[in-house]
Amino acid sequence: MTEEFVPDVVISRLPRYLQTLNQMAKEGLHTVSSKMLAERLGITAAQIRKDLSFFGGFGKQGTGYSIYFLMEQLQKILNLDRIWQVAVVGAGDLGRALTHYQGFASRGIEIVLLFDVDPKIVGTKVGSIIVRHVDSLEEEIRRCGIKIGILTVPAEAAQITADRLVSAGVEAILNYAPVSLMLPEEVHVQHIDPVLHLQQMMYYLGEKD
Amino acid sequence: MTEEFVPDVVISRLPRYLQTLNQMAKEGLHTVSSKMLAERLGITAAQIRKDLSFFGGFGKQGTGYSIYFLMEQLQKILNLDRIWQVAVVGAGDLGRALTHYQGFASRGIEIVLLFDVDPKIVGTKVGSIIVRHVDSLEEEIRRCGIKIGILTVPAEAAQITADRLVSAGVEAILNYAPVSLMLPEEVHVQHIDPVLHLQQMMYYLGEKD
Repeated sequence: MTEEFVPDVVISRLPRYLQTLNQMAKEGLHTVSSKMLAERLGITAAQIRKDLSFFGGFGKQGTGYSIYFLMEQLQKILNLDRIWQVAVVGAGDLGRALTHYQGFASRGIEIVLLFDVDPKIVGTKVGSIIVRHVDSLEEEIRRCGIKIGILTVPAEAAQITADRLVSAGVEAILNYAPVSLMLPEEVHVQHIDPVLHLQQMMYYLGEKD
Repeated sequence: MTEEFVPDVVISRLPRYLQTLNQMAKEGLHTVSSKMLAERLGITAAQIRKDLSFFGGFGKQGTGYSIYFLMEQLQKILNLDRIWQVAVVGAGDLGRALTHYQGFASRGIEIVLLFDVDPKIVGTKVGSIIVRHVDSLEEEIRRCGIKIGILTVPAEAAQITADRLVSAGVEAILNYAPVSLMLPEEVHVQHIDPVLHLQQMMYYLGEKD
């Protein structure tokens, strides 16, 4: 595999390719053209071919891609050929929904720690996981060697909690709190905020009125 | 306001600008330079100035932007100077978390309908909203004139539910189900899938091993 520097925006599309290929495999398909894949994803075939060319191609002229082979390659590129353990901070509705979520295990993700501050929640179980007090956050995360944290705490607690995760060795944070986090450059942060997605669509809805 | 064609990627950044400005306003700031805003957002100042120039600028050379004025302009551009009513389909953990979510009301979004198929859930209340059976989906959505739907149904129910939303007049869908939806081009779709975000970060974590 020839790996040169790959732009972030290319990396951001690879999980979507994998998801769509997985869906196609479930539908019983074995090969796919970049055109078919592009139609499913709402992007151009040229874009897909260009993205995959960063990793050496994988398709044969005229025959398209072998779905299983391409899935396997994407899994290797994204380091999904292992299980990644994750800690969730915030055991409210969203933290609980994530902990119960069935879609993680099959895609290389396992939530192993869940923290909260509420004494009414600490010590209770969500699925098979006991909610721990955030006081033990650093200790538990170090003990488990966890590199990935999910933040579902209120906005006002997000920055301090993120700082604590990073000090305990976390290198990637998925932030559901509706605030921008200021963290060292080497920490990877992704934001999920339904409001941002909805507001983006409202721009287009308003255009039609 | 001079509005020319604005690329989607520019529109996708505007809600994040607004969110960060809102945060700065809460911190008591009144003006902001594109450099300060850029640091908070992890993008370049040139990018911000270029994005805002699509709508006529808003900053004065040397003095930066008035935070409140810029917020007001962004709200107008994104059509947030009104309340948008939203229907949620799927009253599981995630649907309930969204319905309880406190961060919608202050940002122009009101969940008014919640649907499920489970007879044990239909008729119960989530917050102040009664869960309705999906059988009444089209009728209720038409009655309320709703244009925006949020899908939190299982993957296998996502496409058919999205089709039903569109047939009832929905023009924008926020899809939490881990599948790509095939819908008419004029329907706006955004996907939220924590796995895609996590997998993207795993690429970088693996690089360090």
